[in-house]
Amino acid sequence: MAADPVPSGAADATLPPPVPVYFVAEQTGISAEAMGNALLVQFPDVRFERHRIPFITSIAEARKAVEILDAAMKGPRQPLVFTTIADDTISGVLRSSRAPIIDFVSSHLGQLERILGSRALHLAVRVHGVQDQERYDRRMQAVEYAIEHDDGESLRHYDDADVILLAPSRCGKTPTTMYLALQHSVFVANYPLVPEDLETIDLPDPVRKLRTRCFGILTTPERLSEVRNERRPDSVYASIEQCRWELKRAEIMFRAHRIPTVNSSAKSVEEMSTVILQHLAKA
Amino acid sequence: MAADPVPSGAADATLPPPVPVYFVAEQTGISAEAMGNALLVQFPDVRFERHRIPFITSIAEARKAVEILDAAMKGPRQPLVFTTIADDTISGVLRSSRAPIIDFVSSHLGQLERILGSRALHLAVRVHGVQDQERYDRRMQAVEYAIEHDDGESLRHYDDADVILLAPSRCGKTPTTMYLALQHSVFVANYPLVPEDLETIDLPDPVRKLRTRCFGILTTPERLSEVRNERRPDSVYASIEQCRWELKRAEIMFRAHRIPTVNSSAKSVEEMSTVILQHLAKA
Repeated sequence: MAADPVPSGAADATLPPPVPVYFVAEQTGISAEAMGNALLVQFPDVRFERHRIPFITSIAEARKAVEILDAAMKGPRQPLVFTTIADDTISGVLRSSRAPIIDFVSSHLGQLERILGSRALHLAVRVHGVQDQERYDRRMQAVEYAIEHDDGESLRHYDDADVILLAPSRCGKTPTTMYLALQHSVFVANYPLVPEDLETIDLPDPVRKLRTRCFGILTTPERLSEVRNERRPDSVYASIEQCRWELKRAEIMFRAHRIPTVNSSAKSVEEMSTVILQHLAKA
Repeated sequence: MAADPVPSGAADATLPPPVPVYFVAEQTGISAEAMGNALLVQFPDVRFERHRIPFITSIAEARKAVEILDAAMKGPRQPLVFTTIADDTISGVLRSSRAPIIDFVSSHLGQLERILGSRALHLAVRVHGVQDQERYDRRMQAVEYAIEHDDGESLRHYDDADVILLAPSRCGKTPTTMYLALQHSVFVANYPLVPEDLETIDLPDPVRKLRTRCFGILTTPERLSEVRNERRPDSVYASIEQCRWELKRAEIMFRAHRIPTVNSSAKSVEEMSTVILQHLAKA
């Protein structure tokens, strides 16, 4: 959750206290957090404790945020404040805090105004709002489509898929499917390659005519066995031999049909999705 | 998709060409894009055409990126480049481009180093990587849990839920559930309030003992009717009267049990999720 402390190994009384980090925003704080995290990872030896202060849209709320920040200044570690506040008045109130503020918007807006030859709004704008209803509805439809077509649930509308993820069970199809739908409005179906599918080199019937939209997911036998053991401990299904066989057969199938693949063993859903999107953009 | 042009009304030959925007990153480009978008929304009258150039981890790849950017400099509009590149060598190659570069990491890293009294890595770090396997696995489990407990699918493990979303059909439970699971590792179940549930003021049996974990979603009768009409046109289910009745009854139920609510009619899943997370953080 947003306020979770960053994982930092076992608690240890000799460790210095974590640095409190505040993401202050007019809206959700998602952008401020994304920006802040890209910087904080550059300090792997420092422990951080993250807090979001979202929906700061009035002077009164900004003053309350300043109180929180000034209170944090009395703690053992100086806090960090990341903000994307664009409204000059709200931003001015925030700057009255004694806490150091890393302001992502105002520090770059001037440069952008010069390059674009256009004046910025300097007002709160909903970056993660609904904005374009049609676009938003399509995104929600992509999520519904993903759920309906998860794990071969419904084979009816594969034709509508932008991409069809193929993989043996538990290689990471579902979370990647959901991420692509939710964050990128991509219509993603996924099809589980069961052992019967893998006995032949042919593509399974439901996806045979849709080869160009297929994308394979592979992993290592060790990782697959580990994940499967959580679900069905000590089963044939989870055995390293079975995992090795399924992955080998899947790889042969993908290669035979020139289906691009991504390996999920050391990649997050964000990274896999980026690889898939890059491929779609080129196709 | 990443390279989609921003919606900007009907195509019009008299409109100036869009400004090409490049998000250049060592990893997925998600942070650079989040940061860039928070700035670009400040220029609602300018059309942008977004492109991601991810996974730039070598000097050779950085040079290729520079070629793309320099080619864009020959176009009708000067391009914008947003980057989070932390590696000093890669960053140096990128700066050899003639395109203006808005560098989110290096422009703030010095300030952070001073505040933290610690030297930054100045190396590529995977912000959206797997990093902590245990933490990542929990996130994937949250996605699985969300799918298994979507729309009252399985009532078995409601006890494990961090939050249970309650709402009449089509109020936006599912996408919000998926977002909370995928982005925040929250275990979310959702329970659809069917008309029979709404005939009484009592909470439905499966969630009765879990009141403190419930969160209600409401919307406007007009929006609900619109969404339902897409699924079942001209049905009683989609009629404005039925929608009004269900929402009214749900509201009465939520109020009677002091269940917090959020209105989905004008809020995105990100905004609803932020409201729910704020509530969880306080609870």
